[in-house]
Amino acid sequence: MKKYELKNISVKKRKSLLKRKAISPIIVNDTVSHICNDVKQKGLKAAIDYAYKIDSFSSKNIYVTQKEFDEAEKLLSVDVKLAIKEAYKNIYKFHKLQLPKKYSIETVSGVKCERKFIPVENVGLYIPAGTAPLPSTMLMLGIPAQIAGCKRVVVASPTKDKINPAILYAAKLCELKEFIKIGGPHGISLLAYGDKDFKKVDKIFGPGNQFVTAAKNLVNADPEGCPIDMIAGPSELLIIADKFANSDFIASDLLSQAEHGKDSVVILLTNSNDLFEKVNLSLIKQIKSLPRKGFIKQALKNSFCLIVENLDLAFNFSNDFAPEHLIVNIKNSKKYLDKIINAGSVFVGDFTPESAGDYASGTNHSLPTYGFARSTGGVSVEMFMKGVTFQSITKNGIKRLSKTIITLSETESLQAHAEAIRVRLK
Amino acid sequence: MKKYELKNISVKKRKSLLKRKAISPIIVNDTVSHICNDVKQKGLKAAIDYAYKIDSFSSKNIYVTQKEFDEAEKLLSVDVKLAIKEAYKNIYKFHKLQLPKKYSIETVSGVKCERKFIPVENVGLYIPAGTAPLPSTMLMLGIPAQIAGCKRVVVASPTKDKINPAILYAAKLCELKEFIKIGGPHGISLLAYGDKDFKKVDKIFGPGNQFVTAAKNLVNADPEGCPIDMIAGPSELLIIADKFANSDFIASDLLSQAEHGKDSVVILLTNSNDLFEKVNLSLIKQIKSLPRKGFIKQALKNSFCLIVENLDLAFNFSNDFAPEHLIVNIKNSKKYLDKIINAGSVFVGDFTPESAGDYASGTNHSLPTYGFARSTGGVSVEMFMKGVTFQSITKNGIKRLSKTIITLSETESLQAHAEAIRVRLK
Repeated sequence: MKKYELKNISVKKRKSLLKRKAISPIIVNDTVSHICNDVKQKGLKAAIDYAYKIDSFSSKNIYVTQKEFDEAEKLLSVDVKLAIKEAYKNIYKFHKLQLPKKYSIETVSGVKCERKFIPVENVGLYIPAGTAPLPSTMLMLGIPAQIAGCKRVVVASPTKDKINPAILYAAKLCELKEFIKIGGPHGISLLAYGDKDFKKVDKIFGPGNQFVTAAKNLVNADPEGCPIDMIAGPSELLIIADKFANSDFIASDLLSQAEHGKDSVVILLTNSNDLFEKVNLSLIKQIKSLPRKGFIKQALKNSFCLIVENLDLAFNFSNDFAPEHLIVNIKNSKKYLDKIINAGSVFVGDFTPESAGDYASGTNHSLPTYGFARSTGGVSVEMFMKGVTFQSITKNGIKRLSKTIITLSETESLQAHAEAIRVRLK
Repeated sequence: MKKYELKNISVKKRKSLLKRKAISPIIVNDTVSHICNDVKQKGLKAAIDYAYKIDSFSSKNIYVTQKEFDEAEKLLSVDVKLAIKEAYKNIYKFHKLQLPKKYSIETVSGVKCERKFIPVENVGLYIPAGTAPLPSTMLMLGIPAQIAGCKRVVVASPTKDKINPAILYAAKLCELKEFIKIGGPHGISLLAYGDKDFKKVDKIFGPGNQFVTAAKNLVNADPEGCPIDMIAGPSELLIIADKFANSDFIASDLLSQAEHGKDSVVILLTNSNDLFEKVNLSLIKQIKSLPRKGFIKQALKNSFCLIVENLDLAFNFSNDFAPEHLIVNIKNSKKYLDKIINAGSVFVGDFTPESAGDYASGTNHSLPTYGFARSTGGVSVEMFMKGVTFQSITKNGIKRLSKTIITLSETESLQAHAEAIRVRLK
């Protein structure tokens, strides 16, 4: 792991350390935009054709059948089912508390204003199918949708024939019934535009590879398309640690982040050179037994340790970076937690590894990357709902507001707005 | 106003009535993308150059000075100041209740998970400068930012020299101090990318003309750019009324929506042909005295009345349309309000005109258009904050979660994730 000392680097170098490697999901390669447009024009049929061509799709049915859901449950070991159930329970418990509450207030006598939360009616959840199945992602998206009470939740995931049983079991716990075996840009485009046989959704959630990300950004930017949860970049972990931290724990956290992929971003900020040395040794020791060494080594090449003179400077740097995951492993963490402004999810203390939040503690693992933690949090129940305002005014209420409304309407040269009040005062 | 009867139109015709006129903010004309890129590359200097060229900017300072804020207050009449203050008070009162609350829960003994709301640190508010000033928009954006507690709030608005005093007075009430006299695509691009002399913001809010909208969409789609509040289309009003509604009131509401611009969308759904006839007569009568006749007549050309056999069908149509504003003026409104799924803001009863919500009742007037009410609500305090999760686990806590995490990590072939647990159990 490379090492820099904050006091010895230039402002320009600090800036370059804060910079992510460019992702340009909107400068889509022609293939993706061609696929998206084709599905926009020709609908389900085109999406299925691409599934044949790209994913070697060969199933009889694009929908997962009840029989397949039942079979999945039988195929899984008791241990895996128990683990999925336990994760489901904790994630549900944590997210249930996010259900936003309606409120009502009389701002002026006779002027009743309310805000009510209504679930997004149709949502699409995307579950990637890479080298390994992601039942945890199914839970992280399915549970908030379930708690929000979305009427129709469609899951989309690419496959040749069968969907992985762990994913189907997780989907079943979330009471998800509509599951299509189409993914990739064609799957995203089908969700976004629909056709006569497939109703389009109102919002799309979920991670994906660069082609899926590009497609999500395309449909998000198209007013005829569909809003998305967030723009996604590579996964990130920033650790702030002092000399009291256990170097083996720190190294294991760095490695667990690095194994996600070669683009993974891993940063260690510490005021202890001694800790850095120990972590480095531990990395070398621990990496040996890990199957995803290739990814890890490449990810570590782009990563670095920054030695800071004091922890305040570490928190400043972290806020400027706005990491997806932030581990705070220092002695007096309480003193520092209020300094955190920009981070997706924060893990505090020796026994709080990122993998706890990735799977089972209860928090969501679908988090803002690429600095988007500056403006948004992770996936939540509120993202599956919308706050709709209602108002109801009495004759006396509108009288009381009338002078204000008429004065402002006329200041803004909107005479008809003023007349809508005057006609009611007659 | 054109009239259709729902029972006599085809499915295809119904669909075409539900369709908005295309807006394509992402298919930006070359000018806008050229301006945005230029400012991205060259920063503040380029933005000022465009202000000179496009907006005939001629002020000494790009920032509104304290002296200008003070002068604005002196220039305004007592009535206008009182109206802005009263609107401020009601909007503040309604929005204050949106401040989200943090929570904390032990999902499993020893596993403490929290969610805390942190204000977005740097936000940009865009205030258009068209034919008339928009102090109300200043309040609708400034108040939620103020309640959220955003550390830096920059207002951007194009001008030759002075900013309208009503806008400055509204800004002052919201405690806004950083106000730049640069707008248009160059203003949006400056907010999004910043430069060494102007720190970029983390999120941009506010309406604008088609060029501003195009620029907002460009910077939103660029990962190096900046997220925005929402994609904006022309303003919309859908009214559901029955024979008990006052036709003069309904006509005045249709007119107040139509005066926004020639693209404004105005729809009346009623089960009473008699009401339709009366509204039509009232429109003709009321339109005479209105200064923005030109806009109104063009907007009404694109608008229509749909006669429905029963009110259920009206609410179905409205949900399919997902209007920005929905007026419900029927006898038994309580019976129907729960049927509303997709709408930005709802106005109930005879004495609840849209202009009340546009200015002074307390609800926000910055609302989802173009069908985006399906997935999002209007501007709110939460949009200026982000929910950040925190977790802290004890040694016993991680022991309790260990089997679940290890099993799921291995199901997903992420061995290092499992090792980060094992190393802590030793």
